[in-house]
Amino acid sequence: MSQTARTRILCDVDFERDGMQTGYLRLFHSSHASAYGFLPIPIVVIRNGEGPTALFVSGNHGDEYEGQVALANLVQALKPEQIRGRVIILPTANYPAAMAGNRVSPVDNLNLNRIFPGDPDGSVTEQIAWFISEQLIPRADLVCDLHSGGSSLLYTPCALTGRTADPALYERQLAALKAFGAPLAYVQGRAQGQGGNQTLGGIAERHGIPSLGTELGGAGAVSREGLAIAERGVRNLLVHLGILPPEARIAAPETRIVGLGGQDHFVYAEEPGLFEPLVELGEAVRAGQPAALLHTPETPWKPPLEHRFPIDGLVLCKRQPGRSQRGDCLFVLGGAMPG
Amino acid sequence: MSQTARTRILCDVDFERDGMQTGYLRLFHSSHASAYGFLPIPIVVIRNGEGPTALFVSGNHGDEYEGQVALANLVQALKPEQIRGRVIILPTANYPAAMAGNRVSPVDNLNLNRIFPGDPDGSVTEQIAWFISEQLIPRADLVCDLHSGGSSLLYTPCALTGRTADPALYERQLAALKAFGAPLAYVQGRAQGQGGNQTLGGIAERHGIPSLGTELGGAGAVSREGLAIAERGVRNLLVHLGILPPEARIAAPETRIVGLGGQDHFVYAEEPGLFEPLVELGEAVRAGQPAALLHTPETPWKPPLEHRFPIDGLVLCKRQPGRSQRGDCLFVLGGAMPG
Amino acid sequence: MSQTARTRILCDVDFERDGMQTGYLRLFHSSHASAYGFLPIPIVVIRNGEGPTALFVSGNHGDEYEGQVALANLVQALKPEQIRGRVIILPTANYPAAMAGNRVSPVDNLNLNRIFPGDPDGSVTEQIAWFISEQLIPRADLVCDLHSGGSSLLYTPCALTGRTADPALYERQLAALKAFGAPLAYVQGRAQGQGGNQTLGGIAERHGIPSLGTELGGAGAVSREGLAIAERGVRNLLVHLGILPPEARIAAPETRIVGLGGQDHFVYAEEPGLFEPLVELGEAVRAGQPAALLHTPETPWKPPLEHRFPIDGLVLCKRQPGRSQRGDCLFVLGGAMPG
Amino acid sequence: MSQTARTRILCDVDFERDGMQTGYLRLFHSSHASAYGFLPIPIVVIRNGEGPTALFVSGNHGDEYEGQVALANLVQALKPEQIRGRVIILPTANYPAAMAGNRVSPVDNLNLNRIFPGDPDGSVTEQIAWFISEQLIPRADLVCDLHSGGSSLLYTPCALTGRTADPALYERQLAALKAFGAPLAYVQGRAQGQGGNQTLGGIAERHGIPSLGTELGGAGAVSREGLAIAERGVRNLLVHLGILPPEARIAAPETRIVGLGGQDHFVYAEEPGLFEPLVELGEAVRAGQPAALLHTPETPWKPPLEHRFPIDGLVLCKRQPGRSQRGDCLFVLGGAMPG
Amino acid sequence: MSQTARTRILCDVDFERDGMQTGYLRLFHSSHASAYGFLPIPIVVIRNGEGPTALFVSGNHGDEYEGQVALANLVQALKPEQIRGRVIILPTANYPAAMAGNRVSPVDNLNLNRIFPGDPDGSVTEQIAWFISEQLIPRADLVCDLHSGGSSLLYTPCALTGRTADPALYERQLAALKAFGAPLAYVQGRAQGQGGNQTLGGIAERHGIPSLGTELGGAGAVSREGLAIAERGVRNLLVHLGILPPEARIAAPETRIVGLGGQDHFVYAEEPGLFEPLVELGEAVRAGQPAALLHTPETPWKPPLEHRFPIDGLVLCKRQPGRSQRGDCLFVLGGAMPG
Amino acid sequence: MSQTARTRILCDVDFERDGMQTGYLRLFHSSHASAYGFLPIPIVVIRNGEGPTALFVSGNHGDEYEGQVALANLVQALKPEQIRGRVIILPTANYPAAMAGNRVSPVDNLNLNRIFPGDPDGSVTEQIAWFISEQLIPRADLVCDLHSGGSSLLYTPCALTGRTADPALYERQLAALKAFGAPLAYVQGRAQGQGGNQTLGGIAERHGIPSLGTELGGAGAVSREGLAIAERGVRNLLVHLGILPPEARIAAPETRIVGLGGQDHFVYAEEPGLFEPLVELGEAVRAGQPAALLHTPETPWKPPLEHRFPIDGLVLCKRQPGRSQRGDCLFVLGGAMPG
Repeated sequence: MSQTARTRILCDVDFERDGMQTGYLRLFHSSHASAYGFLPIPIVVIRNGEGPTALFVSGNHGDEYEGQVALANLVQALKPEQIRGRVIILPTANYPAAMAGNRVSPVDNLNLNRIFPGDPDGSVTEQIAWFISEQLIPRADLVCDLHSGGSSLLYTPCALTGRTADPALYERQLAALKAFGAPLAYVQGRAQGQGGNQTLGGIAERHGIPSLGTELGGAGAVSREGLAIAERGVRNLLVHLGILPPEARIAAPETRIVGLGGQDHFVYAEEPGLFEPLVELGEAVRAGQPAALLHTPETPWKPPLEHRFPIDGLVLCKRQPGRSQRGDCLFVLGGAMPG
Repeated sequence: MSQTARTRILCDVDFERDGMQTGYLRLFHSSHASAYGFLPIPIVVIRNGEGPTALFVSGNHGDEYEGQVALANLVQALKPEQIRGRVIILPTANYPAAMAGNRVSPVDNLNLNRIFPGDPDGSVTEQIAWFISEQLIPRADLVCDLHSGGSSLLYTPCALTGRTADPALYERQLAALKAFGAPLAYVQGRAQGQGGNQTLGGIAERHGIPSLGTELGGAGAVSREGLAIAERGVRNLLVHLGILPPEARIAAPETRIVGLGGQDHFVYAEEPGLFEPLVELGEAVRAGQPAALLHTPETPWKPPLEHRFPIDGLVLCKRQPGRSQRGDCLFVLGGAMPG
Repeated sequence: MSQTARTRILCDVDFERDGMQTGYLRLFHSSHASAYGFLPIPIVVIRNGEGPTALFVSGNHGDEYEGQVALANLVQALKPEQIRGRVIILPTANYPAAMAGNRVSPVDNLNLNRIFPGDPDGSVTEQIAWFISEQLIPRADLVCDLHSGGSSLLYTPCALTGRTADPALYERQLAALKAFGAPLAYVQGRAQGQGGNQTLGGIAERHGIPSLGTELGGAGAVSREGLAIAERGVRNLLVHLGILPPEARIAAPETRIVGLGGQDHFVYAEEPGLFEPLVELGEAVRAGQPAALLHTPETPWKPPLEHRFPIDGLVLCKRQPGRSQRGDCLFVLGGAMPG
Repeated sequence: MSQTARTRILCDVDFERDGMQTGYLRLFHSSHASAYGFLPIPIVVIRNGEGPTALFVSGNHGDEYEGQVALANLVQALKPEQIRGRVIILPTANYPAAMAGNRVSPVDNLNLNRIFPGDPDGSVTEQIAWFISEQLIPRADLVCDLHSGGSSLLYTPCALTGRTADPALYERQLAALKAFGAPLAYVQGRAQGQGGNQTLGGIAERHGIPSLGTELGGAGAVSREGLAIAERGVRNLLVHLGILPPEARIAAPETRIVGLGGQDHFVYAEEPGLFEPLVELGEAVRAGQPAALLHTPETPWKPPLEHRFPIDGLVLCKRQPGRSQRGDCLFVLGGAMPG
Repeated sequence: MSQTARTRILCDVDFERDGMQTGYLRLFHSSHASAYGFLPIPIVVIRNGEGPTALFVSGNHGDEYEGQVALANLVQALKPEQIRGRVIILPTANYPAAMAGNRVSPVDNLNLNRIFPGDPDGSVTEQIAWFISEQLIPRADLVCDLHSGGSSLLYTPCALTGRTADPALYERQLAALKAFGAPLAYVQGRAQGQGGNQTLGGIAERHGIPSLGTELGGAGAVSREGLAIAERGVRNLLVHLGILPPEARIAAPETRIVGLGGQDHFVYAEEPGLFEPLVELGEAVRAGQPAALLHTPETPWKPPLEHRFPIDGLVLCKRQPGRSQRGDCLFVLGGAMPG
Repeated sequence: MSQTARTRILCDVDFERDGMQTGYLRLFHSSHASAYGFLPIPIVVIRNGEGPTALFVSGNHGDEYEGQVALANLVQALKPEQIRGRVIILPTANYPAAMAGNRVSPVDNLNLNRIFPGDPDGSVTEQIAWFISEQLIPRADLVCDLHSGGSSLLYTPCALTGRTADPALYERQLAALKAFGAPLAYVQGRAQGQGGNQTLGGIAERHGIPSLGTELGGAGAVSREGLAIAERGVRNLLVHLGILPPEARIAAPETRIVGLGGQDHFVYAEEPGLFEPLVELGEAVRAGQPAALLHTPETPWKPPLEHRFPIDGLVLCKRQPGRSQRGDCLFVLGGAMPG
């Protein structure tokens, strides 16, 4: 934490103080409309003596909402006297994106979850990434980054973690994943996931801090089912860490865990067109089974283009918007656990 | 049809010729990028001798897709020799909007379904409206305009028609609605619907031509369930009109019909915030029941704002995007049939 | 008022009911982001029995703020029991422009005060103009439209009215102008003002309803001096109309009234450049006196271009932004009263 | 000319005064950046006693430049004492478009040459059209509107006129066309041209005033060859009208005249792609001859799509930009003279 | 200055040549509209033999104008024979921003005064910063960077400098500040100012070169008072350095100097709303005194939100635009001198 | 090639496999519209045993088309059995720019040919540059980067190479240049060219790999003459390298080679205006000869500004768009060969 002086962000809260503190990360952004203004990224710290620290993040992508609601609800529900240790909550990590309902920042057009560890002297999203990397993650015993499918994807609500290089770290992540209690989860193989080592999870791994995440729905909406899973999971993680007592645990189904490997787990649009999915989320599919038709109603006399699944698997995720471009991801499949 | 000379759009097809013809409405749009170019709006006419005419329209809003797929499939499936009379198919009525996956036209920013009867000398969307009003609707015995919820709404798939001033016309519309065979339908009260008399249905009523429509899903995606309802309904309408023989009818459930009246059937956001729905589509709700919470995760320490349903009803439709502004419609309820 | 049915705007308040009512004009705007939403234009009606009606409007241009603050304060201060008759308050007439801090609407790019009487079937700003023209003005005995210089102009705070064709109407307007109690006012000659008969004042004249206005500062800010003049003027007008009792009048200086005639009252930039004013607001100037220099620091070795005043007059208004284009108005002078 | 009062544009010049006058049409456009500013459209009137009036217009489309240069040169060269009668010169008719180097106005996105006769109360381009229609054309004995291909087309430099309904008017136009002295010209059939009766030529015909035009090159550049043809033609028209003496005529080749009829004179892109022309401007082609290939280097393994000419003809014009959309015009052919 | 080869900018002037030279920094920017073009940043060098070098910069933020006018006037007034040594003048340092009247560059959206020392291989604003850092500052004995409040702030005209780590450098800066002769000045504490060490002043400090600056007004306009202070100050600095003789000094009031420290010198908007200031620029205020009201005329029935000053101080600066967001700076206070 | 692991781009083709392979570079770009999608940059590898490798690139600037067509045609014509060694073809190197018909990427606004060697972790264009630098160039024995003038320039079709520091490398480049067989070519002096060492050619030089390029036309169109030169040159390079047999060589004229040196080979606009060229492409001009007039038809009474050529030379290239800004390049001259 010697890098403290490196960040240009001012932080309203004192991480070492007991009680509940609410305030903002003040990210100064000198723009035409506001020469001396700051972007107010809300942060909440709840602390009660020594103990483990949980870091909860949502709004990493601004249009992923279940986590934002779950963490806002947590802020309103959790009292310092109920816990032991510390909970740090960052509900709208990419604040400008969250306010705009956008995946990426409208200020610098950057995707926060593709630029870790960021840059303390860079543009606003790079400064956020740096603050999380250098000021928040090193303080945590567990990082939980709550995602959903966002505007362009729809997920079967699930939790996830990554297959880290360090087996001990991976074991801790797997234990936390199971404690979370989502009905479904997936484990991402090494260096194969979307975003690679520039994600929040990737930077946590570099710090040696266990992390997990979620994909709670998507299509730019708040999913009631995904929200319920998030609220339960967040609470169960606090129990798992010993921040909340065991009796606070909410009963959950056993988690079915699948693996997410390389490019053969993905179906991409081969041509531009209008995407009709041929299967449902959560469905088990077989290699060669028709996955999608791409229609061109602008020339309705041309037949649609069929796409097929490359492997057997479970449909984790589908593309939401109808109109699609070549290269857009149409489906993600869960398969065998990565080795 | 004496207004023929008034349109500036050139039409590739001859409405009086037998067989299948495919081509474009050539809507000339002299832009910086294309001084003499036209926007190619696809049109298909299938004709086999004298008989009734069905007009099918989709892509009135460019981001409503089930109808576009259903009509593209119809173009590929229907053979002239199978029918008696004429089928006119306009699958991407607002072609620039459909190509952009947008509700409104990216060219002139107009909502086609709010500007009927249009203007033959106006901007591109006004010219489309005029062509449909003056060239297509007067040729039809029945108009079917296939909508979905689009990017901002999600509907329980359903069919719909309006309570016209002329009771005989209303009876014909109701009969067509039932023939369509959607599991659910609603009847819109007079002058109370969204868009009023500037919609395609409104202009059909002024011409005395029966019309019906659909709301087949939404959220900017292709709904498999909605598509199936559309494909069945389109075919059953052709049977209903006698264009296809009775044996072509696809069995359908009896249609449950509800009414859609005034502003008390709508729930609107009272403040900006993040919309969490508290009920499901298709659910029966009671007046006073909590409908939605509007959260503000940018100040997570503030409690959410509760909204309640104003009347008893059936949840026809909900808002899709999480982030919402004051005045955004959160829910539409079906209620008693309009008188 | 027979045109009531013509507007598509729903109005939350009942103009004939006693007491204070607050609510919105619901201006439905079916957009990609909100298919069934409305723009909520706030309206307040305060009524206590029979009596005269005052209509106060601000936010006609969205970036003119003193009137918006003065009317918001009026809403919070005025009690029905204090008045006789009716006060109608529309503090953000061009609501989308006001929310954006913009002169013109970000929705359709229209300047509300250049399109009266509007169009009930037109774009959103045209619908607002129509509602004011057909629903509000005919209900009023006096219309007061509170303007400031906006983002591009800075005014000596003043009141204003127009030289109407009907002398009786003009007399009533002049009396109201004096009652308002601004230290300075101007009278605009016939058909010579900026905006001509497409302004709110122009449409009031066509209805035969007296109207007056203000220019309370500008430069996109809230002027403390202008706000004080507005608050006093609004209250004094209510006294003038008999809606408030005489003892409610706030003492004011006698109003100095100048005239605003044709193009020789204006100084326009003759070339692009950086505008340096050579006189102060409120200063008396002589024909031929240097008014401005237009600099080109991008070629600092070129001398600036001098502009001179065409007539003797009082400096009512100056351009605010430094960088200017040929044709931009640099100064407006008050002169002799129009005949 | 009784409509004078209808325009909102102020005109710096007096059309009845002898000598050379230069100034602006002051088109008031009350914008966020300039509340009281005007768009300064330059106009020049050169008059010497009674006699015929020639009206020269360029910059109708802002990115068509040869006419703008030719008319600027004319302003600098022509002295009142050289002429008899009057010359009215409007070199940048769509001034905002000309300053932006754009076909259409950046202010209201309108194409001036598709909205005649305009609207005195409309948006800025509509006001320009109205002023030309009602203030300039009625004063003229001949209208010459100098076009080029603009950004999206490249023409063999040529002159043109239309086949008017009134044979006498057509004869006068043909005579002027020949006097102009371009090496090539075309005559547009009735109601078949791009833009129809909403062009400047169309409105001149409605006024019964003879008009002609040019297409002097294009591709957004100044063509030296086209400029030379324009300068000679403009001068020869003044001789033709008797405004300049016969000895001022510049020798010119006899004009080859072709006809431009219906849609079969045009080749349009059938698919999106990269346009490779297979013939040269000015080349004589035969029906069925390959005209163009549309390539898709984004999938270089797919063969290009060949387009063929529908009729025999002379290649008047080709599309300039490589990347093309379905419906873009690739070639225009001159053919037989319209009947 | 061994880094010469590192810059990609070509410089028209020779810093070692006597006399007055004017020209451009040629900043090559290969864009769609101009593949081989350069951005012409004007630079002037006036030299007369050996002696000290003054570097004057304005237009660091493009919408801050008094310095641009003062330096353009200096270029026109100063003769080589009047001076001893060298004066380097860069009146529109961020040339694209200055031409656009924008704080930040419209080319790369960067704020020049937040990215020093820049990057010789970076985007256009980064290249400008690098050139100033590596080519201009090292040549100077004193750097004067003339700022104003810009579009979003309005300052009491004042001069300023920073509390550097090196006391000797600070003494030299303080002496120059006093020589400048502004009626008011402030000294910024270490590492606390807006922009920190990424400003022009920050990079000068790293080079060990004394620097000072100004804040001469703002609100996007040219302030006559601020301009007069700038012109006097620039000249007095030349005297202070010995470049102009002592008799050239213009009499000035003694400078009142205040300090600008940490966040308690700033008042920020706590909520979105319309900002009404409750005090005047230059006013002395007390801790707890009401500073501002934030109104919401879009819901005029809600009371405004009061903000208070956190410390005693002098009002140096206020926000200009009415509509404000949470985090916008409303006021800056001068307080005790930093230690 | 040890940096393989550094790129985030997935490559569909195996560079070491015999036969023809077609596929995409999968450049993952996680955007709001497509969270998991990739940009599909087509790549083709044709290999037949051991032998030399030619790398052909086009679409480095998206609006330069002759190379894109020539390489698409090469993909369709070349069979593995015809060659010895390997041909790598990247026809739309900046794929998003090529699809948009834009010089620079619409995704990150970067000019690919100004950012080499790129960055494996950077924005999309930086990732493309890195892949070419680290994955393609090191595999090549000769790099050929096919450019044209693009939207803003028009070139006499020619080939080009650079004067490298290493004389042996330069000799190899010169030999390839002559083998290419363009009628005209130029050699760029060291470190003087547009783009300097950040171009594809610059990075090839750093790798010690010979490279050459072309400028085949421009103005945003496909030039038939330039395309023919490109197709011949590409084939002749394959013969030159021994990949195709000697008999495959297409006869070509001897290449005239000129030099391109410093800034005196360029003519730049000194003021904004409308550019009229006074000479033709390919013309030999003398120092002091008039080159261009810059007109201002917006003030047609002002004379145009003449520009003159600074040196004797051959006109290689001219600006295409009429409207020009100060600093835009109007002409490039070829002169004496660089030493």
